[in-house]
Amino acid sequence: MNNSPQRHREHRENIFTQLRSARNGILTKEMKHVAADEGLEPEFVRKEIAAGRMIIPANVNHRNLKPIGIGIAARCKINANIGNSAISSDEGLELKKLCVALEHGADAVMDLSTGCDIDRIRRAIVAACDKPVGTVPMYEAAEMVEKIEDLTVDQLMAVIERHAEQGVDFITVHCGLLRSHIPLAQKRVTGIVSRGGALLARWMKKRGEENPLYTNFDRLLEICRKHDLSLSLGDGLRPGCLADASDSAQFAELETLGELTRKAWEKDVQVMVEGPGHIPFDQIEFNIKKQIELCNGAPFYVLGPLVTDIAAGYDHIASAIGGTMAAYAGASMLCYVTPKEHLGLPAEEDVRQGVIAHKIAAHAADIARGRKGARERDDALSRARFALDWERQFELLLDPKRAREYWESARPEVSGLRSQVCSMCGPKFCAMKLSRELTDL
Amino acid sequence: MNNSPQRHREHRENIFTQLRSARNGILTKEMKHVAADEGLEPEFVRKEIAAGRMIIPANVNHRNLKPIGIGIAARCKINANIGNSAISSDEGLELKKLCVALEHGADAVMDLSTGCDIDRIRRAIVAACDKPVGTVPMYEAAEMVEKIEDLTVDQLMAVIERHAEQGVDFITVHCGLLRSHIPLAQKRVTGIVSRGGALLARWMKKRGEENPLYTNFDRLLEICRKHDLSLSLGDGLRPGCLADASDSAQFAELETLGELTRKAWEKDVQVMVEGPGHIPFDQIEFNIKKQIELCNGAPFYVLGPLVTDIAAGYDHIASAIGGTMAAYAGASMLCYVTPKEHLGLPAEEDVRQGVIAHKIAAHAADIARGRKGARERDDALSRARFALDWERQFELLLDPKRAREYWESARPEVSGLRSQVCSMCGPKFCAMKLSRELTDL
Repeated sequence: MNNSPQRHREHRENIFTQLRSARNGILTKEMKHVAADEGLEPEFVRKEIAAGRMIIPANVNHRNLKPIGIGIAARCKINANIGNSAISSDEGLELKKLCVALEHGADAVMDLSTGCDIDRIRRAIVAACDKPVGTVPMYEAAEMVEKIEDLTVDQLMAVIERHAEQGVDFITVHCGLLRSHIPLAQKRVTGIVSRGGALLARWMKKRGEENPLYTNFDRLLEICRKHDLSLSLGDGLRPGCLADASDSAQFAELETLGELTRKAWEKDVQVMVEGPGHIPFDQIEFNIKKQIELCNGAPFYVLGPLVTDIAAGYDHIASAIGGTMAAYAGASMLCYVTPKEHLGLPAEEDVRQGVIAHKIAAHAADIARGRKGARERDDALSRARFALDWERQFELLLDPKRAREYWESARPEVSGLRSQVCSMCGPKFCAMKLSRELTDL
Repeated sequence: MNNSPQRHREHRENIFTQLRSARNGILTKEMKHVAADEGLEPEFVRKEIAAGRMIIPANVNHRNLKPIGIGIAARCKINANIGNSAISSDEGLELKKLCVALEHGADAVMDLSTGCDIDRIRRAIVAACDKPVGTVPMYEAAEMVEKIEDLTVDQLMAVIERHAEQGVDFITVHCGLLRSHIPLAQKRVTGIVSRGGALLARWMKKRGEENPLYTNFDRLLEICRKHDLSLSLGDGLRPGCLADASDSAQFAELETLGELTRKAWEKDVQVMVEGPGHIPFDQIEFNIKKQIELCNGAPFYVLGPLVTDIAAGYDHIASAIGGTMAAYAGASMLCYVTPKEHLGLPAEEDVRQGVIAHKIAAHAADIARGRKGARERDDALSRARFALDWERQFELLLDPKRAREYWESARPEVSGLRSQVCSMCGPKFCAMKLSRELTDL
């Protein structure tokens, strides 16, 4: 909607990113849209963007995008990862997963394909998705070579440029993982669990060179600036288990991410910073505060964090728990985790479970942060619940279809009761009914 | 095991509850068992029980019980609710649900049957369950009369006595909901959502009398003392939605629960106190601290709390989020909530989902509280994960069967790879594999 051909041309000529515009005092259509969407003053949104505390990932080439704001002043967002692997899934299935993710409220989608037809799947996803789309260009780059150490900087930059031209709104790039950090990670229980990070570490060790995304960061920024492609500075050294959380490897990289955040801002490039991972519940707040401090308030985009390592099959729950705390402490976007995490690629039902679990986390945190209006939907639901108005409840629930299925299957077969009670309490023990009658006694 | 006929006779003669024994400096078999189970010094367990900060719900008539300790010094426990309603389920299905709950790690089970054959189902559950069993006697009492206001104190006490004689280890009784509290709840969005509370409120209003469980509290304590039946002081005025959280009704009742806790202690009766309910994430810690203060450190047993009202169909997740925070802040036992909460009675799969979600919450909180040894299982899992040792991982996961199903269905059909990779990353993008190889480069 906002990426009209006109804006597209204007942008090409002026090379104005949302960040540059904000700093120049210009209110873009995207900022106004985000302000309306969030119930914030447009001028406030502009200031947040100018300060780097909010980003609007809106590649000028993503034509059908409805822009969103990611930052501490906005509602907490959630991202859903889809994408195939070398041994499963195809374009059709990925588009189905995309639909499920969007239908259930994903605010952004990342295509993490590592298998065949990466380019085609990505183009199909960008075309079909009206929310920001993110990618990890390193995955495609790795597919182009026999061994990762054969990858050249030019090849890698060419992949990134193609993603940018195709309308990808943000890319995860592990620019902050330096050669000097690798030994710190080798003492760990689970080493490097980020795929992008592990590939880069191998590249560095095999070639004896520094991280090419770090040494060529300016070249990367040029590409980003040209298309207003936002950076998601990846945490290649995120802890992959509780034992590795908050260690020297993690924080060494985070310091570099802070340095790169400031560099990107100098070049008008929008940045968010990715975070862990697996973190004990009591260390989450501290981690978020530290990131906000080291990265000067750049929006924090967290994967989980998972609060235990033993929940595979239910990691969406371990992640929703950590995600609520992270968002409450100041994270701006949660990357979902599905029940299949650590075991396989998510299918459609897993995408649904992952999205809803993290919608709950993000929403609970919005309420806990006292965000204006955040609780209105809950209050409306509660009024409908007390009135035993099931249809209104279904309208307001996060997953109306699933709730209706459960309710329908549980309703008693007693005639005359079908619209009122559920099988949970039955007619005699319905507390809502008893409680409503109290006033008449 | 501990409730041998001998102990049974001794108890009957001396009327020694665990609390009386602890105060007399006696280390019971149950205390020793709990100490071994928790990795605590027996003398320390005795002191915690004497102080009222830990209970061992162990009815002398529950012969096959393996006792557990519930308290701030012990691992956080979880309770699974089963039981039929007037319009669904039977004894066979309830016993199946019991098996599912115990298999997946429930520490206690409550039979909340409100339908037919309550007595028979309860006896079957007590006989089949080696974990503490709880009930809400008011449900059965309500079934005995046409209208709840017809219920007499003698009838109610007779039901409680029968539960005690049958070996029920703890009962939820809403003794703290007073007549004067009812108007406070009538200003609420969802009024009184506790079934026991709503029934009692109706009884009081219709009869114009005070809560019979409050006025006859001494009589109740006599029954408890005789069988070492533990009290779970119910929160009849727990908030049923975020809008009602932390209100005057909730806290008025909590003050009364503190008063009753001290009264019970005087009579050597073990007590835990139930808590909300629906609570915004940011108010949970404050609620727990307040309970601990008002009830002199009696163990807190929370239902959820749910951190949003709009998650029906996924309320086990909303509850696990709140439960983690509650347990981290000091709650001693979490009552599970299943995906069917607010919609219908849980089936077997719902019981499994509910139990695992709350095992995650309790375990995450144990780790976050720095409980000794709590993270050992996670660390062992992480070592197995890094080694790609799937069989060892399955041994250590909370739900090995489910994880194996997911993994089996996701494994690539490429020969030679079956024991190593999953379809998540595929062979080329396995970060664990890449990371392990780093040391050899």
